[in-house]
Amino acid sequence: MRNHTLLTDLYQLTMMNGYLKNNIADDLVVFDVFFRKNPCDNSFTLIAGIEQVIDYIENLHFDEEDITYLRNTKLFDEDFFEALKNFKFTGDIYAVEEGSIMFPTEPILRVKARCFEAQLIETAILNILNFQSLIATKAARVCEAAKGDAVFEFGLRRAQGPDAGIYGARAAYIGGCAGTSNVLAGQMFNIPITGTMAHSWVQKFDCELEAFRAYAKIYPHNCLLLVDTYDTLNSGIPNAIKVFEELKADGYVPTGVRIDSGDIAYLSKEARKLLNAAGFTDVKIIASSDLDEDTIYSLKMQEATVTGWGVGTNLITSKSCPALGGVYKLVAAEENGELVPKIKISENPEKITNPGYKKVVRIYDEANQHAQADLIMLEDETIDLEQPLTVFHPLYTWKKKTFKKYHIRELLVPLFEGGKLVYERKTTQQIKAYATKELHSLWPEYRRLNRPQTYKVDLSQKLWDLKHEMVKSMRDE
Amino acid sequence: MRNHTLLTDLYQLTMMNGYLKNNIADDLVVFDVFFRKNPCDNSFTLIAGIEQVIDYIENLHFDEEDITYLRNTKLFDEDFFEALKNFKFTGDIYAVEEGSIMFPTEPILRVKARCFEAQLIETAILNILNFQSLIATKAARVCEAAKGDAVFEFGLRRAQGPDAGIYGARAAYIGGCAGTSNVLAGQMFNIPITGTMAHSWVQKFDCELEAFRAYAKIYPHNCLLLVDTYDTLNSGIPNAIKVFEELKADGYVPTGVRIDSGDIAYLSKEARKLLNAAGFTDVKIIASSDLDEDTIYSLKMQEATVTGWGVGTNLITSKSCPALGGVYKLVAAEENGELVPKIKISENPEKITNPGYKKVVRIYDEANQHAQADLIMLEDETIDLEQPLTVFHPLYTWKKKTFKKYHIRELLVPLFEGGKLVYERKTTQQIKAYATKELHSLWPEYRRLNRPQTYKVDLSQKLWDLKHEMVKSMRDE
Repeated sequence: MRNHTLLTDLYQLTMMNGYLKNNIADDLVVFDVFFRKNPCDNSFTLIAGIEQVIDYIENLHFDEEDITYLRNTKLFDEDFFEALKNFKFTGDIYAVEEGSIMFPTEPILRVKARCFEAQLIETAILNILNFQSLIATKAARVCEAAKGDAVFEFGLRRAQGPDAGIYGARAAYIGGCAGTSNVLAGQMFNIPITGTMAHSWVQKFDCELEAFRAYAKIYPHNCLLLVDTYDTLNSGIPNAIKVFEELKADGYVPTGVRIDSGDIAYLSKEARKLLNAAGFTDVKIIASSDLDEDTIYSLKMQEATVTGWGVGTNLITSKSCPALGGVYKLVAAEENGELVPKIKISENPEKITNPGYKKVVRIYDEANQHAQADLIMLEDETIDLEQPLTVFHPLYTWKKKTFKKYHIRELLVPLFEGGKLVYERKTTQQIKAYATKELHSLWPEYRRLNRPQTYKVDLSQKLWDLKHEMVKSMRDE
Repeated sequence: MRNHTLLTDLYQLTMMNGYLKNNIADDLVVFDVFFRKNPCDNSFTLIAGIEQVIDYIENLHFDEEDITYLRNTKLFDEDFFEALKNFKFTGDIYAVEEGSIMFPTEPILRVKARCFEAQLIETAILNILNFQSLIATKAARVCEAAKGDAVFEFGLRRAQGPDAGIYGARAAYIGGCAGTSNVLAGQMFNIPITGTMAHSWVQKFDCELEAFRAYAKIYPHNCLLLVDTYDTLNSGIPNAIKVFEELKADGYVPTGVRIDSGDIAYLSKEARKLLNAAGFTDVKIIASSDLDEDTIYSLKMQEATVTGWGVGTNLITSKSCPALGGVYKLVAAEENGELVPKIKISENPEKITNPGYKKVVRIYDEANQHAQADLIMLEDETIDLEQPLTVFHPLYTWKKKTFKKYHIRELLVPLFEGGKLVYERKTTQQIKAYATKELHSLWPEYRRLNRPQTYKVDLSQKLWDLKHEMVKSMRDE
């Protein structure tokens, strides 16, 4: 594994050195990771990348060559390098379970550590969570459009570098994809891998029928034929049917066809007719041609007879929205041995942060297990489940809702305490199963692709008061 | 270095096994890498990633654990694994020099190898070249808008995973950026790194002035202060001026200020006035707030007094166009010991490939060293420089141009011959210098950000004839 300790912005290092020189490197600080806007106008973000954050934290160390490199920048001195040589993460990190559904402004990860340590890790944590959460969310959208059909991630060749292909495949699987074409991602995360032939296979033989026969001979159990190299309906499907008949005569069950170009609505319906007429009502029709959730949704509306979808570029890059803007903001800092809430104000009210050491509570309907609202609270607050719970909109405070029969769940769980991993690592399969449960806990109105309902994220009265007092006092200054 | 041999699509492996079983694994094939459309409606694409393609090819090998993984898929047999254990790339790869300016349909890399080998490497080669060329091109656009001001790459936290941050920083530097905030990219590729402080530094102190003073004390030679934490014009700039005066009194030259929010046009002009009035006419004003080439262009038109630009998300993800669609297409294959041209036809005329074993020639004006047109030719064709050269548009064939005083350059150079690296590796600095030269070889009309001129890419008469005969004969079938 490549050492990612220097995978950070230079200003983290200049600030760390600054803390050291000002004798405040040991001051405890609290940073929250949160985002302000869901990707693709979705109503939620599916959080992924927590396991990679754990890997990153566990492997943090400055190698001798890192020190040598930093020495050559002439920005630092030997005191700083001594501190780096002994660097070890010793703080607390809490985060949501990987696969959680989260909403704007909510802490999804919280670091409490010496400011010397907390500052270093900002950039890599954001890099990891921003990308994987983006792709997991995009995958959830694509799978929502596919309404239960299998969706396969095919985007490696257009991914933004090797890691984007690998971790994007992982995130897409967590978000709902059935598999990936990416063999290395399959190996690393035990994701089902899929793929049969490209146009070059068909071109390599003298004719399409010969290419199909050669393939069927080697893979009689997994015979999925690419039918659009020359002419889907006049050549590809008729040749596929011939080969399927030969397979059937030999006692095999043919798998299906893949259409990679042309009008998928028309071609899939015509292909289905031809296949059905030949008795192959069960073979699959896979489509893969510049697809995304909108195109799949439209094809479904047109009654395309596609049974599985290969989605490439638009998924692996989240092309319609290629970045999630997660941020890492100081919310508390030690002053005279005590954690004091901090706030970042802005002319733009949406950019004002929620101060203090906080937690997030999700409120569920007792009757149906659906999530009803989230409440951001200060860490030391509690909810009395025996009492009705009233929440209010943080801006339109007259918008209130009272829960009578409900239960709650705290979303932030400990990953590291005192630098020690206290979290039970999850397999990608466990995470995917959890994400599926999370998606099902949402009312369909929130999962809708276009103009979904906005999920309620409210502040506790105590947090709301703290925030407003702090804003007011800073504006008065 | 992580072994990237399995960084491929599964169908490459199923096809490789298929070639083996059909006793055609040793047949020579030729694949071209090319793209059909420049990113961001640009007129060109700046090619980057060639050095990483070389690393990838040189490190190709199947580890024992790779074989074990593939064995567990139950798709393959031991004959195949024997072939993988002995796998080594033994073919020829030609490519353009990294940093080259290229145009749609032109081969930018050409593989001639046993089909067993050529098939495996498609996915990773495309992944590497597509991403880095995308970001290098985006960076060239951003730098074009900045008209000579320094542009810094600040996007690591929003990049699509660690590699995207690292190789994106590299590509951005090649495309024209002056440096990056990404320390690991700086270390790996000897790119200048840059960065001073974040808002958290300012928040960590009791007041802004104290935070600035603390910073200036540690970094008197490199004192660039972030001035927008509270109020840029009423607090940040006045406090910066106080600290700059103190630095000046101690004999230091202050570096500058950074503005990270608000209206950059207004704030930069007002900040400049205040700084100038205090005698700091030379300190820099760096802007960094959701910038891209369009915003920088607009700010320049508004006479913003920014001297350097920090560009994050929009550059590192090429947000307006987050994928380059480079493809890898079979253009020739061995039949009875001879290389026969191959073509992929399509209902969409733009998707019909250029067949055969080809080269690309760039035609320069003898008078001014500007590139005038490119000609795609068959490898065995030559140009007689003593004679005028007439080129014609491949579609509107009546559009012709004749060059009388010209010289030419062949763009594809050998990287590997017979599996052996024959290319002299380049440093990132050499590549950046070459890219700069390439950009200057274009008339400004091609570098224009909006609605640039389309550069001429023509086919030789012989290639044009071959292509049209092949299309005709396939349609007649």
